[in-house]
Amino acid sequence: MAASYLIGLDYGSESARGVLIDTATGAQVASHVHPYRHGILTRNLADGTPLPPDFVLQDADDYTEAAAGILSRLGRGRTVEGIGIGFTASSPLPARADGTPLSRIARDAPHAYVKLWKHNAQAYADAINAHPHPFLAGFGGRVSGEWLLAKAAQVAAQAPELWAATDRFIEGGDWLVWQLTGREARGLGFAAYKAQFSTEAGYPQGIVDGLDRRVTPPLPVGTAAGALTPAWRGRTGIEGPATVAVAVIDSHVVLPAIGAVTPGCFVGALGTSAAYLYLDDRPGRLPDGIEGMAFNGSMRDLWLYEAGQASFGDTLAWFVRTFPRGADMAESFRAYDAEAAALAPAAGRLIALDWWGGNRVPHADGNLSGVLAGLTRETTAGEIYLALMEGLCFGTRTVFDCFTRSGLSPRQVLMTSGLARANPLLVQIIADVLDRPVSVPDIDNATAVGAAIHGAVAGGVVADYAEGARRFGAHDVSRVTPRPAQARVYAAAYRLHGDLGRQDGLRQALHGLRRLDGA
Amino acid sequence: MAASYLIGLDYGSESARGVLIDTATGAQVASHVHPYRHGILTRNLADGTPLPPDFVLQDADDYTEAAAGILSRLGRGRTVEGIGIGFTASSPLPARADGTPLSRIARDAPHAYVKLWKHNAQAYADAINAHPHPFLAGFGGRVSGEWLLAKAAQVAAQAPELWAATDRFIEGGDWLVWQLTGREARGLGFAAYKAQFSTEAGYPQGIVDGLDRRVTPPLPVGTAAGALTPAWRGRTGIEGPATVAVAVIDSHVVLPAIGAVTPGCFVGALGTSAAYLYLDDRPGRLPDGIEGMAFNGSMRDLWLYEAGQASFGDTLAWFVRTFPRGADMAESFRAYDAEAAALAPAAGRLIALDWWGGNRVPHADGNLSGVLAGLTRETTAGEIYLALMEGLCFGTRTVFDCFTRSGLSPRQVLMTSGLARANPLLVQIIADVLDRPVSVPDIDNATAVGAAIHGAVAGGVVADYAEGARRFGAHDVSRVTPRPAQARVYAAAYRLHGDLGRQDGLRQALHGLRRLDGA
Repeated sequence: MAASYLIGLDYGSESARGVLIDTATGAQVASHVHPYRHGILTRNLADGTPLPPDFVLQDADDYTEAAAGILSRLGRGRTVEGIGIGFTASSPLPARADGTPLSRIARDAPHAYVKLWKHNAQAYADAINAHPHPFLAGFGGRVSGEWLLAKAAQVAAQAPELWAATDRFIEGGDWLVWQLTGREARGLGFAAYKAQFSTEAGYPQGIVDGLDRRVTPPLPVGTAAGALTPAWRGRTGIEGPATVAVAVIDSHVVLPAIGAVTPGCFVGALGTSAAYLYLDDRPGRLPDGIEGMAFNGSMRDLWLYEAGQASFGDTLAWFVRTFPRGADMAESFRAYDAEAAALAPAAGRLIALDWWGGNRVPHADGNLSGVLAGLTRETTAGEIYLALMEGLCFGTRTVFDCFTRSGLSPRQVLMTSGLARANPLLVQIIADVLDRPVSVPDIDNATAVGAAIHGAVAGGVVADYAEGARRFGAHDVSRVTPRPAQARVYAAAYRLHGDLGRQDGLRQALHGLRRLDGA
Repeated sequence: MAASYLIGLDYGSESARGVLIDTATGAQVASHVHPYRHGILTRNLADGTPLPPDFVLQDADDYTEAAAGILSRLGRGRTVEGIGIGFTASSPLPARADGTPLSRIARDAPHAYVKLWKHNAQAYADAINAHPHPFLAGFGGRVSGEWLLAKAAQVAAQAPELWAATDRFIEGGDWLVWQLTGREARGLGFAAYKAQFSTEAGYPQGIVDGLDRRVTPPLPVGTAAGALTPAWRGRTGIEGPATVAVAVIDSHVVLPAIGAVTPGCFVGALGTSAAYLYLDDRPGRLPDGIEGMAFNGSMRDLWLYEAGQASFGDTLAWFVRTFPRGADMAESFRAYDAEAAALAPAAGRLIALDWWGGNRVPHADGNLSGVLAGLTRETTAGEIYLALMEGLCFGTRTVFDCFTRSGLSPRQVLMTSGLARANPLLVQIIADVLDRPVSVPDIDNATAVGAAIHGAVAGGVVADYAEGARRFGAHDVSRVTPRPAQARVYAAAYRLHGDLGRQDGLRQALHGLRRLDGA
């Protein structure tokens, strides 16, 4: 029998990554990274058009360019059974009925571009939240400024002509699947978690004028959206069935790659931001502060509860970039990590509220910002770096406690991502702060492998995700156990972190800062 | 007539500085700096004895060594009419009845050394404050952990045998005068501001066991303590009357050098910490949060109200030292100052609570610590540096508002110190934040010159401080006017700074941080 392959695509914020997996051996044969030509647009568009403050955009054509680059590099001349895609979310764009992104037509219109997940239309979320709609009950009671509804409301309000020319308002991942297969087949995960779709009620009505005409019903994950089109086969040289699965939220797509395919798994995907996922076999009360819960949106026949931190690795990267300690980021990270590892817990008697990108749990408020408290003339840079790490881990526990307070009972805690694998101190602090063992699956390119397993399910290569996980997922796991002395100190520090974050006056002052003019 | 001179000595935290002034021309003829041999002792004594946390000590013999160095360098073979001394406070030490500092006898006993002003015995201040004594009414209602009473209480409690061997508990400045003249002649300023002495009631009774036997009544400023002893004349080569004035608190001694000798002057002495002084010709209600008010303690026949910030230049130096931007501190300061000067006010939408060394006004709480709020992934190092400057200036205004709310009416605002003269941006922000013109007298070695004028008054070279200021003080003044647009932004930011600082829960969390163990 001739060799056949899976391809998994992981569309991140800066670049897309692909892996090629041998279906017979399960081995990763090759991988390839393709940076986006225009990167992240925050100051101006490619033609120089300046962007308003708080705009964080991408060019959809960068996604297809990356797909062409990766698929041809990995797949040319090969028999590919299935292709799966993980994608950042909510990163929606306006398109015509034939799939043409409006950014290809109106190159100088900021609202014609992809609004990357980091783009925060908080004012529009606030307006939606001000008049509670019943549909929100199933979604934590509040819409986030990073979600599709707020972003659609922003386009409709700020660029009505462009909104009128919009036939489809669609997540970048769904749009990419449409390009590759010629078929608009949206993923249930994007719809449920980012656009408040429910299987019973459909999309929410009457929130954004005309939005319901611009979206289409989604399909469960693991569904085949279609096969790669002849044009794409020509462009990439891929042969075989090349079944493309519906796209999946990037933080969810990793689950089968790390063996998180059963009820009771609590998974932290620690990237630039952090997503926390909990799998269960029955629906429950949506925990206060948790953002979403859906069935078939991430894993077949399971419920997945989701929550997150808007800025995670980004916060550490911010510190290291702002206060470098070496010739490049990697050297600075090494220096700070080594210094932090030598310190006692909470060594600087500092507390960092981990709100550099706003706060999701428990405040669901993108207008909050980070706080560093306890500074003295003796505070060292290493102590601040450690406090940032600890603050992020207190954020992890804030989410974890949200789940357990609602009666959910995590049986296993897994942390995944390059950051989790590269930074043993961070994972150790998470174990200390949670006071529970933490497992870190040992697998390269986990997100892309997870996407490939979705392709395997959609293409019928495996019967289900459990088989996909066994054949193509992680085999080794590092287990980190909590240190009792450190856990004691962190229990006290975590209480202070919570006490500080609950101060209404502090949060009001942070809101006031955003309104300072002249700044 | 042969030339005659004045010598002014400015005893700071790291070194002593002396100036030589020609009494006929008023010109500064020479100056000299003598660093303390043992510097500031925080980790261990010279013999290696480790110090408990929060100890900040000095060796009294370093003061006489510095005096010998400076006086012989400036005065040898010269006719010196008067010598004045400004000294950090409260920096008390235990001594025998003959003036021998206990640190010369018990070299390995931490409590035998000078407790430098930065040394904070907050727990003992808290204990004193817990049982309000009537004497405190005239001193802001609270004792600070940096003041003599708290430090005496700490010695008595932690080192009872050493306290039993202590005949005198005396400020470093008063002790130095005693050494130079052979006469224990304490300055009224130290007694009134740092030991809660009042002319009517004397020293407070019954607070620290046996303290009243270890202190002696003070003399008004400008009083001659005595003449330089024959031994010191031999050691330094000084000739003439060499009348030594009673010592003065270093932040007060500057007043005549910058022409602040009349009622209505509000003076900020911006050093490592900041002192704010207000001169009036009548006693008033002591403003809430203001630490002290005394007559004849700083300037003859005037009342002086005092308040301060525990950490001022120290906070900026901490930042520049912790996050360097150049080969040395000076280069880093230049880089940060240039970057901050190019930014709009509150450019980073950050608020810094300027409590790096605790807070004096309005909370009188040395256990508070600094807070930086509003951090995002876009925050730059320059924005943080600017926010620290702005936070310090909001602290200045907090003090200023304390005075004006109590009915005092500053007619003139003066800022003095090397920092005020070297950093035009800082003074500009103070003017913007106060929304008032600010004057910066243009004089080198202002504190030492002020001390020399005290020597001139004590030695009868001038009739009063006004004449001393005219003949020996600053002649030129830079005047900085507020910028209306910036003043508007700062008015809003100052409100946020106050709102944040008033959060009880925030301050409780900062207290909680100090109790974190394992740290």
